[in-house]
Amino acid sequence: MKLINKSRLALVCLSLLPIAAINAATTSNVKPLIIAEQGNFASGGTVIESDGTFDGKALFNPQGQTLHGDHASVFYQIPENARPYPLVFLHGAGQSAKTWGTTPDGREGFQNIFLRKGFGVYLIDQPRRGQAGQSTITAEVKATTYDQMWFNMFRLGQWPEFFDGVQFPQNEQALNQYFRQMTPNTGPYDEQVISDAVSQVFDRSGDGVLVTHSQGGGPGWWTAIKSDRVKGIVAYEPGSGFVFPEGEVPESMPSGTGDLTATPVSKEQFKKLTKMPIVIYYGDNIPAEVNDNPGQDNWRVRVKMAKAWADTVNQYGGHAQVVELPNLGLKGNTHFPFSDLNNQQVADVLSNWLKDNKLN
Amino acid sequence: MKLINKSRLALVCLSLLPIAAINAATTSNVKPLIIAEQGNFASGGTVIESDGTFDGKALFNPQGQTLHGDHASVFYQIPENARPYPLVFLHGAGQSAKTWGTTPDGREGFQNIFLRKGFGVYLIDQPRRGQAGQSTITAEVKATTYDQMWFNMFRLGQWPEFFDGVQFPQNEQALNQYFRQMTPNTGPYDEQVISDAVSQVFDRSGDGVLVTHSQGGGPGWWTAIKSDRVKGIVAYEPGSGFVFPEGEVPESMPSGTGDLTATPVSKEQFKKLTKMPIVIYYGDNIPAEVNDNPGQDNWRVRVKMAKAWADTVNQYGGHAQVVELPNLGLKGNTHFPFSDLNNQQVADVLSNWLKDNKLN
Repeated sequence: MKLINKSRLALVCLSLLPIAAINAATTSNVKPLIIAEQGNFASGGTVIESDGTFDGKALFNPQGQTLHGDHASVFYQIPENARPYPLVFLHGAGQSAKTWGTTPDGREGFQNIFLRKGFGVYLIDQPRRGQAGQSTITAEVKATTYDQMWFNMFRLGQWPEFFDGVQFPQNEQALNQYFRQMTPNTGPYDEQVISDAVSQVFDRSGDGVLVTHSQGGGPGWWTAIKSDRVKGIVAYEPGSGFVFPEGEVPESMPSGTGDLTATPVSKEQFKKLTKMPIVIYYGDNIPAEVNDNPGQDNWRVRVKMAKAWADTVNQYGGHAQVVELPNLGLKGNTHFPFSDLNNQQVADVLSNWLKDNKLN
Repeated sequence: MKLINKSRLALVCLSLLPIAAINAATTSNVKPLIIAEQGNFASGGTVIESDGTFDGKALFNPQGQTLHGDHASVFYQIPENARPYPLVFLHGAGQSAKTWGTTPDGREGFQNIFLRKGFGVYLIDQPRRGQAGQSTITAEVKATTYDQMWFNMFRLGQWPEFFDGVQFPQNEQALNQYFRQMTPNTGPYDEQVISDAVSQVFDRSGDGVLVTHSQGGGPGWWTAIKSDRVKGIVAYEPGSGFVFPEGEVPESMPSGTGDLTATPVSKEQFKKLTKMPIVIYYGDNIPAEVNDNPGQDNWRVRVKMAKAWADTVNQYGGHAQVVELPNLGLKGNTHFPFSDLNNQQVADVLSNWLKDNKLN
């Protein structure tokens, strides 16, 4: 393990000037955002208490003291003349509300794009992540060197090469910003803890559309099971946590990064997922057949699982579809379509879906 | 350690409805915010690399992989027709950019208040905190029950009693939101790592005013030592990290929570702090004499240290002052004057200081 001082200096210098320049260029000709209301709140969570009695003379003795944790932290913005259904955004693994903000190369992300389209936005840091870091369970945060793993898993390319035509800006400055979006779990990852908190975000936002990314897909299904206020679900590249009715769970699917398994739920729970339109989007460079690059091969089985899942939802009377963006003519998308170079087009695809499903 | 299920339910129920009601009441009669530009970026940071060679077939082997960490994460908003100097906000211990947002009882915090006054705002999650959680050093995040310690240390009262006339909403719902603002360090606290990243925020924001809270005071002084773009410093209740010229460091000051020590710097470094106006604000319920409540007594010596520090800055030709808000007629302020019940008045005090110092 070594500190890369030269690299650090280069990255730092690169990271500042060009982004400012890009921002100036992209914002000089756009209209201001008119925000009727914005703010933060904590949603849900639990309280633990240590045995004993609190002693005001011994403040650092935890006996008899409580800890509030396992909540979500939410930043929301409501534009003037907002559409009726806000979008509630839940990030993926190692990410935070930042996911939906500025893109790695300094362009506007879905936060601003959908504010401009008139939607309220609720941006979540899930329990035990980001600004919602206070966990009721102790955990170790390991400083593990994993950038290149993410580069491959998020389908920017096969390190150090980018895929031909990939919708990611191929420069060190954007990559620097991208890697710095990662932020760790501060407690054990728990779909139930997360979906408890996210379903309570809907109590605050009112009826709305849940937009999930990657690992967020799993707690996203659970949120819709727990809250009647979820009126539609948009899942970008869900990777795990698919729920099936008991007795209908597919066999685990082997891939280059291990086996993908699904989770059984009761039929009653599963039927909740038939009550709203659901769309799942996947990007490009996902192979149809077994591939010797594990960073791509794992997505092969995830798409396969997603299709089996949508079929099951529809067999129960639901309205779920899996859309592979290349089939719409959108080529080169990574695991982050909403911040890729063509994210305005990706947003238009979502806008059309919201319109078609009377969610705008 | 036990889970408080009843309490949880009560808190959850309390936490949702009244805040929504308060928001509706407070925002229905205010003008929308006109935001010319908003976004996020990572600032500064380092890169570490593991020995060995990256193997694209063994993604979870950290050998030869890098990790980007120790950056700050920043959310910024620039209002239309912004004043020339933005405000750059650095939170205190256990806090995040959330500190400056909505107050625990759902009113507008300094983020919105100063946007409405025409200032650009840069809201920082410091390195190894919040959305900037990726640290280059492994750490344990302990789920320690410390709510009552914070209640006393932050001068809401002496648990479970609030101080008479305290500027904090005395209900469980606000307290629930308040405790949930806390978010842990995900790596070792390091003033140099933090001030490196914050000084680079100023490279992006341009010349501006640094506003710090509590523990943020220490890295705040270092930021001004490192960056010529800091044109003024506003420190709310700095608690530690005061820097003095070598040979002039005061003796450590004992208090009910331990000894407060100061840090030596070179005269050359110290003189940087004479180049801009500096104001330090403290709230109420800080005793002048030794007090048997450690939650209050520790602030006694912090004010004493701050006054000694300002005197030293001024002896070197600087312009620093310590303002105790009760002396201006503002009574009952806690450790968080900017989100207290009278935070509009506290903001007006700051506005006047900015105006008097030609920083508006």
